[in-house]
Amino acid sequence: MTDSKGRRPSFRRRTAPGAPPGTLETDPHAPFPAISVIGFGPERVVEKTVQDVRELELLVEGTPVTWINVDGLGDAPTLIELAEMFGIHRLALEDVVHPHQRAKVEEYGEELFIVARMISRENEVLSTEQISLFLGEGFVVTFQEHPGDCLEPVRERIRKGRGRIRQAGSDYLAYAILDAVVDAYFPILEELGEELEELEEEILEIPDRGTVSRIHTLKRDLLLLRRTVWPLREAVNALLREESILMSRETQIYLRDCYDHTIQVIDMVENHRDITSGLMDFYLSSVSNRMNEVMKVLTIIATIFIPLTFIAGIYGMNFNPEASPWNMPELNWRWGYPVFWVLMVTIGGTLLYVFRRKGWLGGGGKGDAKGR
Amino acid sequence: MTDSKGRRPSFRRRTAPGAPPGTLETDPHAPFPAISVIGFGPERVVEKTVQDVRELELLVEGTPVTWINVDGLGDAPTLIELAEMFGIHRLALEDVVHPHQRAKVEEYGEELFIVARMISRENEVLSTEQISLFLGEGFVVTFQEHPGDCLEPVRERIRKGRGRIRQAGSDYLAYAILDAVVDAYFPILEELGEELEELEEEILEIPDRGTVSRIHTLKRDLLLLRRTVWPLREAVNALLREESILMSRETQIYLRDCYDHTIQVIDMVENHRDITSGLMDFYLSSVSNRMNEVMKVLTIIATIFIPLTFIAGIYGMNFNPEASPWNMPELNWRWGYPVFWVLMVTIGGTLLYVFRRKGWLGGGGKGDAKGR
Amino acid sequence: MTDSKGRRPSFRRRTAPGAPPGTLETDPHAPFPAISVIGFGPERVVEKTVQDVRELELLVEGTPVTWINVDGLGDAPTLIELAEMFGIHRLALEDVVHPHQRAKVEEYGEELFIVARMISRENEVLSTEQISLFLGEGFVVTFQEHPGDCLEPVRERIRKGRGRIRQAGSDYLAYAILDAVVDAYFPILEELGEELEELEEEILEIPDRGTVSRIHTLKRDLLLLRRTVWPLREAVNALLREESILMSRETQIYLRDCYDHTIQVIDMVENHRDITSGLMDFYLSSVSNRMNEVMKVLTIIATIFIPLTFIAGIYGMNFNPEASPWNMPELNWRWGYPVFWVLMVTIGGTLLYVFRRKGWLGGGGKGDAKGR
Amino acid sequence: MTDSKGRRPSFRRRTAPGAPPGTLETDPHAPFPAISVIGFGPERVVEKTVQDVRELELLVEGTPVTWINVDGLGDAPTLIELAEMFGIHRLALEDVVHPHQRAKVEEYGEELFIVARMISRENEVLSTEQISLFLGEGFVVTFQEHPGDCLEPVRERIRKGRGRIRQAGSDYLAYAILDAVVDAYFPILEELGEELEELEEEILEIPDRGTVSRIHTLKRDLLLLRRTVWPLREAVNALLREESILMSRETQIYLRDCYDHTIQVIDMVENHRDITSGLMDFYLSSVSNRMNEVMKVLTIIATIFIPLTFIAGIYGMNFNPEASPWNMPELNWRWGYPVFWVLMVTIGGTLLYVFRRKGWLGGGGKGDAKGR
Amino acid sequence: MTDSKGRRPSFRRRTAPGAPPGTLETDPHAPFPAISVIGFGPERVVEKTVQDVRELELLVEGTPVTWINVDGLGDAPTLIELAEMFGIHRLALEDVVHPHQRAKVEEYGEELFIVARMISRENEVLSTEQISLFLGEGFVVTFQEHPGDCLEPVRERIRKGRGRIRQAGSDYLAYAILDAVVDAYFPILEELGEELEELEEEILEIPDRGTVSRIHTLKRDLLLLRRTVWPLREAVNALLREESILMSRETQIYLRDCYDHTIQVIDMVENHRDITSGLMDFYLSSVSNRMNEVMKVLTIIATIFIPLTFIAGIYGMNFNPEASPWNMPELNWRWGYPVFWVLMVTIGGTLLYVFRRKGWLGGGGKGDAKGR
Repeated sequence: MTDSKGRRPSFRRRTAPGAPPGTLETDPHAPFPAISVIGFGPERVVEKTVQDVRELELLVEGTPVTWINVDGLGDAPTLIELAEMFGIHRLALEDVVHPHQRAKVEEYGEELFIVARMISRENEVLSTEQISLFLGEGFVVTFQEHPGDCLEPVRERIRKGRGRIRQAGSDYLAYAILDAVVDAYFPILEELGEELEELEEEILEIPDRGTVSRIHTLKRDLLLLRRTVWPLREAVNALLREESILMSRETQIYLRDCYDHTIQVIDMVENHRDITSGLMDFYLSSVSNRMNEVMKVLTIIATIFIPLTFIAGIYGMNFNPEASPWNMPELNWRWGYPVFWVLMVTIGGTLLYVFRRKGWLGGGGKGDAKGR
Repeated sequence: MTDSKGRRPSFRRRTAPGAPPGTLETDPHAPFPAISVIGFGPERVVEKTVQDVRELELLVEGTPVTWINVDGLGDAPTLIELAEMFGIHRLALEDVVHPHQRAKVEEYGEELFIVARMISRENEVLSTEQISLFLGEGFVVTFQEHPGDCLEPVRERIRKGRGRIRQAGSDYLAYAILDAVVDAYFPILEELGEELEELEEEILEIPDRGTVSRIHTLKRDLLLLRRTVWPLREAVNALLREESILMSRETQIYLRDCYDHTIQVIDMVENHRDITSGLMDFYLSSVSNRMNEVMKVLTIIATIFIPLTFIAGIYGMNFNPEASPWNMPELNWRWGYPVFWVLMVTIGGTLLYVFRRKGWLGGGGKGDAKGR
Repeated sequence: MTDSKGRRPSFRRRTAPGAPPGTLETDPHAPFPAISVIGFGPERVVEKTVQDVRELELLVEGTPVTWINVDGLGDAPTLIELAEMFGIHRLALEDVVHPHQRAKVEEYGEELFIVARMISRENEVLSTEQISLFLGEGFVVTFQEHPGDCLEPVRERIRKGRGRIRQAGSDYLAYAILDAVVDAYFPILEELGEELEELEEEILEIPDRGTVSRIHTLKRDLLLLRRTVWPLREAVNALLREESILMSRETQIYLRDCYDHTIQVIDMVENHRDITSGLMDFYLSSVSNRMNEVMKVLTIIATIFIPLTFIAGIYGMNFNPEASPWNMPELNWRWGYPVFWVLMVTIGGTLLYVFRRKGWLGGGGKGDAKGR
Repeated sequence: MTDSKGRRPSFRRRTAPGAPPGTLETDPHAPFPAISVIGFGPERVVEKTVQDVRELELLVEGTPVTWINVDGLGDAPTLIELAEMFGIHRLALEDVVHPHQRAKVEEYGEELFIVARMISRENEVLSTEQISLFLGEGFVVTFQEHPGDCLEPVRERIRKGRGRIRQAGSDYLAYAILDAVVDAYFPILEELGEELEELEEEILEIPDRGTVSRIHTLKRDLLLLRRTVWPLREAVNALLREESILMSRETQIYLRDCYDHTIQVIDMVENHRDITSGLMDFYLSSVSNRMNEVMKVLTIIATIFIPLTFIAGIYGMNFNPEASPWNMPELNWRWGYPVFWVLMVTIGGTLLYVFRRKGWLGGGGKGDAKGR
Repeated sequence: MTDSKGRRPSFRRRTAPGAPPGTLETDPHAPFPAISVIGFGPERVVEKTVQDVRELELLVEGTPVTWINVDGLGDAPTLIELAEMFGIHRLALEDVVHPHQRAKVEEYGEELFIVARMISRENEVLSTEQISLFLGEGFVVTFQEHPGDCLEPVRERIRKGRGRIRQAGSDYLAYAILDAVVDAYFPILEELGEELEELEEEILEIPDRGTVSRIHTLKRDLLLLRRTVWPLREAVNALLREESILMSRETQIYLRDCYDHTIQVIDMVENHRDITSGLMDFYLSSVSNRMNEVMKVLTIIATIFIPLTFIAGIYGMNFNPEASPWNMPELNWRWGYPVFWVLMVTIGGTLLYVFRRKGWLGGGGKGDAKGR
């Protein structure tokens, strides 16, 4: 129930408790950092994959805005070298390599340190990945846990010069990245929404034990989403109120739009959560209804036949009619057997009539017809 | 369970994640924009349907207040042309064509951008529709997803000059539209309230599987309402506190009244929600009661007849009385069979007495009588 | 389940959605306004029932404080005439005739407009009635939906000059009216509290289907109370903080006492609500216990007699002992029948012993003894 | 379920609704006021029981600090005389004789009026008693509903001069009284905590109907405690922030400690409440488990023996083998009876095997072993 | 269910209610105080165990920062002597020896008094221990209830000079201790998280009575954690906002990191709590499903065989065919017995067909397959 990049690692800390703050203990299983750079200005775009951190220095100075992206957090020295080059504080770097942070915004001197969580869903397993972003004058550095992300559209916009991204500064780039992270929540929420509706129909049609299990998983996923999104909203809000010289007045108008999106995400998550919690009740009452129906069938059959069987048993007794005139004279009556049948049919019919009046016979059927 | 203008689309976003902000990707299935204009002043009213956006220019200048209404968001160029004519910001226009926004108020330069959600209910399906309103000096532009709305009474008031609407400015018109949107919630809430009472009686009378399903649907509808109304209240409140020169002191007194109405709507929604959540408990305990009753009947019948059948079974055994004097001498007794009957009646009567003392016989009946 | 002056009307609005604000559409079924006046000063009291609104003018000027009370909201012209005489704003008057308002305090120029809800309970049906109060310099105008109210003690105090009411101004009169409204909640809450305790004992003694229904009604009543009381508290608090020249410093000390009372009412309502929601659990577990007990009886009886019946059935078979020495030789044994009985008693006894050890026999009884 | 000094009276008001504020309608069943005085200074202590209020005057002036304690609120004239002597406001005195107040602090001119609730528990019945405290320069007046309180340790400290109570002023005395009231909550909370643990074990061992009833009572008691403690915390906090000249800076440090204690009490109450609400679930699932087990036993027995009994029934039929060779030839077979037995054992064994595989046989046992 | 250093003592107070504040009544069962000292500066570290409090004086002056740690609170005079040496207020010392405090920060003159709770888990029993910390200029005094703590890594860092601890002042030491306390929560939360997942799988596989009990224990543990962690967060936050000269600007940056960790702990606790409360529902619906399945088996078997047994019973009756041609002529029919069998098979087959159509036969199986 766990996976390499998924749910559980978000609860893990790798540094031993009590280690000095700022200690960089990278996860030995984490991928080796792969560094890629996009530098751009209104006129031109330079894109490059870098092996050695020192290559960066030249690249950064060549263009108005540079975006350094690091995929993989598996090598402490590389990360430290990078951190020193861009003036990244040691405590912030510690947060980068412990990828279980809640979204947040922190100011370190002249830089803004932004943590957000990207979301992905494969094979019905929801997982989150931390993206750490450092925003400085003329550059943005992002760290991700694994290769592969939801930022490709942003890179396309830079390459093709769509929108105003090439004209704007590093603050707008940071906004564009955050916005892409938030936007990636929507398709997943729609997926979950569709599953919710499937589950609803399943409960109406043929609920089974698997249904509970799916509701439970959905609940956990929404819980994970919730824990991820709320801090994200706070972080974007903090950014909006940030009075840093890094954030231009214009970018903040766009951030307001991004903030709006986080609120929409929260709205959807909370809505899904409310519906999901209603589903459990819906399921339980559905099961309870079916149980009731089963019990009714049993009761009707048993209540009709148990007395009849008793009467049949009586006339199966062997009291000797010859020993005494009082011993089962019915057995020798001319109409004994036909009277027995009349008795049976009368008792059975009366009981059926009583059940119908109690609504046990028609009730179940009507419920079926209406309920479906 | 979904419909073309209804619940689900409110969760859909049509722009691909990561697209540049302000991108106008209109929904290909959305209706083509139909533009109608009402210009009015204290003296006169001009009403016209416009094919070409450029016709508007003359119309707007002819009257103190002009209301341009656009039904359908299916054509980007038309919308963009309109936006440019009235100085509408690109980000705001993006919100217009993505009709899944929460109600809100935003200031763009000299204009106020107001988003609200209209509600409608047909064939027991609740749906919401976004109305986007731009309030400028001397004009109001509204965008709706589909033709047909709840604003006809406002148009009537303009045409007939009822109330002070013709005397007032564009801010009062915006208030009147908002107020009409809020007022349209009341009849629907009353409908839901009546359904709630029907459900309550249904549970008391003949709860069936369809009842759960209806409670569940009601819960979802109220959830949708709640998600729609709370932001509406916040938006009206924001408008109330807005210190724009667009909003006259007098209109704000009327807005206070409108704000009062949103609070009443919320009050009713929350009240309905509380009652609905109590209904599920009510239903479950009702089902549980019925199950209990069914079980009692089964137990009474089975408990009485099972021992009797056993005894009848004994005297149906074929132990040979001739092989030994100890073998079932009862069968040849003179009073064997009558004694058997006395035994049967005694056992049955005793058990019935015990059940009555336990309250299993009278209990059910009394409960019935009282409960209904 | 509805009544003419009761619960449901509080959800109804009579004005068509979208009508111009301030429209006075009175309910055609509402009683015709009956106007009564009490004018008083330290020295004297004048009490009169008025047919024509114009008679009021003289009365008002004759005494330091005048209280005009209107019972019934069924005639718009009368109300409008009155409103004009006392400078009542049109929006406020609209709120008066739509008697579904939440309690609130609004300032209109030099007047305070206070809305509160009075409560009454007849034949176990809880209902609320709106009282609208206008406080001006030297006069108080109150509007009620129906004749009959909880303000008689205030009138008595004016007539008999008890307390300081005759010495004080119109603000103290307004306080006295509000205080009487709040005080009328207490006896009803005590009634509900007693019902709660009755229900508790009923669940312990003989819970039946009617119990659920009563719990459900109680829940709804408390919900209604809650919705009524919270705004009342806010309104009194708003009045307390009001910096109007109408409210003397001294009256505000008394208002603090009144505010204290609203808090006590809320406290009791919330307490009752908490207990009521616990009651449902209590009831369900009680039912569940009884079901368990019923099931145990069934199981004990069935489990003992079903095997016995089987064995009796065996010796009722007709395998022909004469056809083969292997065919049921037991039937011809000398001690066949006695051995059968020994077997029966042994099996029955063993099962009883097992049940006792499982606590199924003693358990039920002990539970009974302790639980009651 | 009610008692003379206990729970229910806290919901009762004795003044008729609408009576003028400040009316003193004492409860005719309340005890007659018994007045006792302790005057003290660093050097000496004077203790006296007083019959006539006028005796007090001399006593108060003899010592730096005087504590007048009144047990019983049954005589209005005595109380009024006392109130006048110590400058107690009429509204405050009204609150004193209506002993259903929430804890609060109010300033009346130069005096502080503090209301708190003392708690006691006898015979498993929790009850609260109001203590009203007036703090003035050099004196403290306390009113209690009944003789007997939790303040004896404070009196001891005054008598023996332990701590700094004799050196400090009347504010410290007020603090000491409040602190004693708060401290008295702890032993009762510990008692309830122990009951909680007993209940937990009871549910694990032998839950019965009495268990639900005890959980329910515990819930109500904790609800009462909660309603009592939260206002107490607010009151102590208000005292802490009070900028009265009556409260010395030093006493406020001690009040902070007392405030800490109220928070601990709340913490314990909320903790107990959380555990109690979990208990109900625990109990219900426990009962549900047992029901399940009972059902399994019934099903196993019935499912095995019902088919066997049917087969035995077949060979008990009387089809005449002599009438036709097709009529029950088995009865005359040589191995008919032994084959029947083999059939029986095979069917029974197969069913048992199936049940074991379904985990119905081992499951119950294992659960038992683990669960306990 | 309790242990000497565990859960229950956290609810106990040892001082009698009403005792004068500052009374030191040490627990007679508490261990005798063991005092150890670590003094350090950038250059050197001195570590010593002290028997007599007076030895401390010299030690403290020898090094820039001194950390005095006291394990065990069993001897009042020792503690008082220590308190006097370091200027510890009597009320604070009272809090030290009553180790049931919530985490808090209090300022006493020039010292900061910090209370936190350490957590440990042994043999599946969660327990907390109070650590009281006094921070003064150049020294830190810590009091713990028992020997053994989670601060060893801090001591190692001091000894080995790792990080900046040796260069920094006593404020940094206090931070380091707090941080170690907070960090110790993570491994325990991970343990609980793993147990949660085990429980989830257990419910899917083989839920039994022990499962409920484990869920209940987990709930209590998380409740305890929650009650412990929230005040800790508040305390760290208070420290962060503290404007004491004791706290350097630099240490506060580290405290912000520590605060972040407490938020993460809370996040995990709340997440675990949410999942746990979902588990109970999951379990109950799982049990309910199984019960349903059991009922279905019983009903199928009983419903098929009860009518068949009845028919077999009929032909076991002894009506005398010789007495009348109407008496059971079937018994003498040539094809009587074969027709009986055909009837049996037809009835049985029809019932099975009906059950299959109702989904009672396939349903269970499919649910199984899907659910696992």
